[in-house]
Amino acid sequence: MEVMKAIRDRRSIRSYRSEPIKDEVINSVLEAARWAPSWANTQCWEFIVIKKEETKHKLADTLALWNSVRQDIAHAPVIIVACARLGRSGFKDGELSTDKGDWYMFDVALAMQNLALAAHALGLGTVHIGAFDAREVAQILQVPDGVVVVEMTPLGYSAEEVNNPYRKPLSGMVFYETYGGDKNCPQGDSNP
Amino acid sequence: MEVMKAIRDRRSIRSYRSEPIKDEVINSVLEAARWAPSWANTQCWEFIVIKKEETKHKLADTLALWNSVRQDIAHAPVIIVACARLGRSGFKDGELSTDKGDWYMFDVALAMQNLALAAHALGLGTVHIGAFDAREVAQILQVPDGVVVVEMTPLGYSAEEVNNPYRKPLSGMVFYETYGGDKNCPQGDSNP
Repeated sequence: MEVMKAIRDRRSIRSYRSEPIKDEVINSVLEAARWAPSWANTQCWEFIVIKKEETKHKLADTLALWNSVRQDIAHAPVIIVACARLGRSGFKDGELSTDKGDWYMFDVALAMQNLALAAHALGLGTVHIGAFDAREVAQILQVPDGVVVVEMTPLGYSAEEVNNPYRKPLSGMVFYETYGGDKNCPQGDSNP
Repeated sequence: MEVMKAIRDRRSIRSYRSEPIKDEVINSVLEAARWAPSWANTQCWEFIVIKKEETKHKLADTLALWNSVRQDIAHAPVIIVACARLGRSGFKDGELSTDKGDWYMFDVALAMQNLALAAHALGLGTVHIGAFDAREVAQILQVPDGVVVVEMTPLGYSAEEVNNPYRKPLSGMVFYETYGGDKNCPQGDSNP
């Protein structure tokens, strides 16, 4: 599938068929995550692949009550939990480099967006889930100190048709030259 | 370009030709960012597109001295600065939903990875840059309170060949069922 088509057609899938996925397909989406860029190539991400029914149900129970995926996440054949090793991304010589602290949220998102796009290209659904009790998940999955649980996604075939969700127009999110500046490329610029 | 090829072949480009880019191409990569998913579809991202020589040089000066892009970023025809509106991502009914605080770092990364992949498919280089003085950039670009500068990337044609940077093998980042559990899919699993 073409990159731009995958980017535009990917939807956040909240309802899954229980049909299993081949291991080679799971490996392909993890490969996509693996090739993401990261702060000074520190690759702080780690992934836990869950297929056991009992564990999937325990994970579902950690989701926020208002989270619409909560009802269905355990139906997906696989859940992938993305973790991060702290103290790697955002540092230089052991010191924080920026006012943002640890950049693990940023780097894990880069990897998980690769994963979501690769999954879509393979006909599989995902949804980035952040609204759950990460400490409870860490307990369930025996995640050690120094590693945090960031997000999870079900991975499976979609059981729903999802409409195109609203996106602001570019003119509502892009400025030229300064914040609040031109919303379209200024006329007479040196670029053709 | 195929999704998986774009994911595997994209490189972080640190040296650029000054050759200009058509505005429609800039719009295409911004479109890719626009279609990213976000926390409850809050789309907290905002982008500033910089082409003016003077501003590009001011931005270069905000980069960490050790950052190897610092020398060359102003050669690129365009710099895209990604900002985030605070208080949107990671919230439910005005309250923080998780122990991670504001999820703007995560959502901006999703959008910027879409942008990086789309740029690569169009023959253009990018590099996610985080090591700069974000408050100084906010001053230069007149970014108001309530909005933070997250990352920037040059956008342009590469002036270098970049080798395949080292990635840990999947066995160094993936576990099955629990953290520290099997590193390969367990035999005899219900999945084929």
